[in-house]
Amino acid sequence: MLKDTLLSLAQNPHMREFVVQNRITRGISRRFVAGELLNDAVQATRTLNQAGIQVALDLLGENVADEQEAQFATEQYCQAIDLIPDAGLEANISIKLTALGLDVSPQLCVDNFRVLLTRAQQKNVFVCIDMEGSEYTERTIDMTLRMRKEFENVGTVIQTYLYRSAGDIARLVEQGVRVRLVKGAYKEQQDIAFQEKRDVDQNYANLMKVLLARGNFPAIATHDETLLQEVKRFVGDYGIGKSAFEFQMLYGVRRDLQEKLVKDGYNMRVYVPYGVQWYPYLMRRMAERPANLMFVFSNMLRS
Amino acid sequence: MLKDTLLSLAQNPHMREFVVQNRITRGISRRFVAGELLNDAVQATRTLNQAGIQVALDLLGENVADEQEAQFATEQYCQAIDLIPDAGLEANISIKLTALGLDVSPQLCVDNFRVLLTRAQQKNVFVCIDMEGSEYTERTIDMTLRMRKEFENVGTVIQTYLYRSAGDIARLVEQGVRVRLVKGAYKEQQDIAFQEKRDVDQNYANLMKVLLARGNFPAIATHDETLLQEVKRFVGDYGIGKSAFEFQMLYGVRRDLQEKLVKDGYNMRVYVPYGVQWYPYLMRRMAERPANLMFVFSNMLRS
Repeated sequence: MLKDTLLSLAQNPHMREFVVQNRITRGISRRFVAGELLNDAVQATRTLNQAGIQVALDLLGENVADEQEAQFATEQYCQAIDLIPDAGLEANISIKLTALGLDVSPQLCVDNFRVLLTRAQQKNVFVCIDMEGSEYTERTIDMTLRMRKEFENVGTVIQTYLYRSAGDIARLVEQGVRVRLVKGAYKEQQDIAFQEKRDVDQNYANLMKVLLARGNFPAIATHDETLLQEVKRFVGDYGIGKSAFEFQMLYGVRRDLQEKLVKDGYNMRVYVPYGVQWYPYLMRRMAERPANLMFVFSNMLRS
Repeated sequence: MLKDTLLSLAQNPHMREFVVQNRITRGISRRFVAGELLNDAVQATRTLNQAGIQVALDLLGENVADEQEAQFATEQYCQAIDLIPDAGLEANISIKLTALGLDVSPQLCVDNFRVLLTRAQQKNVFVCIDMEGSEYTERTIDMTLRMRKEFENVGTVIQTYLYRSAGDIARLVEQGVRVRLVKGAYKEQQDIAFQEKRDVDQNYANLMKVLLARGNFPAIATHDETLLQEVKRFVGDYGIGKSAFEFQMLYGVRRDLQEKLVKDGYNMRVYVPYGVQWYPYLMRRMAERPANLMFVFSNMLRS
């Protein structure tokens, strides 16, 4: 209920205006978003790198309205890509196809993405295509497989709340595509997605094993301690090395677990969002985890 | 350990000779095998049908050595297909591609299978292709998808111990192919299959949900009570009707559960094996379930 409300509010322009303009909510957002500028993300990355944590840089923004906006996003991403080796960061990047113009025109998106991947390849930076709502799933996977034929350094994300994901993982694994596994943070209907947490979790546990057993350096992206335990048990039982995969978590979420996993010798990558368009990202984080929402409330009360 | 030994013995000709010739072991086999003749299978089917249970008839036999044997198996299957409507049985059939000559020549197998499917279509009988060891998985799925283009009445089996199964299910579901889901009864290596029971079970729970949510009248073939509970919970939560799927169990195994599920209004189909080549089937049943083995031991001691 609360989750659905928050996911609806993520799309609401009035709420967006309020949260973005309000001094207090802006302040709170800094727990989960590095800042509005690339430089903020660089600072956050340095701090994480010093703690032995790698980063996935995410320039916030999705569903751009025209060619100009898409081009602008592409240029900003290219700046970030250049900066990674120049600033000596341990980071790769995450992009959304709708930020590169997928809604404007598929060809525009392909053109922008090819520019971005070429630059990333030159700089030896891996690029992960974020997964968005289910209306984009098929196109995102198609784009990934298409680009994978031209570029080594591209992967994507699979959401375990979707029924189709088992099949998508098989297709991606077959082509050696790197996959980040997540539960999924959008609102999806029962005809295409599991609605019960236990079903989403079980699908996660299961697809995670398929990725660990057969995948190419998969990213196990979860804060769920039961699932983390299951990963450790599985790789132990099947003799899978710690260097064969990485854990991923979100900036500001379960920093205790992030440090613990690094200490235990696992690869840990933190997803660092930055940019002015942080509102829908923040709302999805509130929707998916009561603890995140409590953090916001308690800070608002204290302010 | 014991399981591996039994699976090895399933291939051992000396053990086979002993078990098949011995009066006591022959008698014991009748718990799990209807008999050596089609008529034995018909009797077993009638008894099950009277209890509200449908049947999958399986003429035992696999890996035939020449064209003549394959043709003979095909003819015997055609007899069984004819008998189903003639004798008023509630039954469909299960076949193995190696029994139709897959090892002899792929074309021989296709030809025989087409004859069999044509006859089955005329008689309105559904045909399920059993899944064998992993060296046959790809060919079995290819054959299923190929035949599905010509015939409505063909489906196959997916084994949840294989890593690849999530992808195979997606391919089959996409084409509307009916799938029977099993854990798998052959010995498979770690590079292709889960070795731990909990992993096989979790894959089962997960793929079962994908089939229930998206599949075409799936067959949930298991005696595992935890999984049966999970099916009931899942179809309840997602509003899936009892007429949208069937449970399947093996002849002679958990007859208490079979009756209970029928009483609760579920579709129940029992796999009834018959024929002279019952030895490897019996050994696989021993290997997969300690209770079956105990049944045999206790009967041998009593004899």
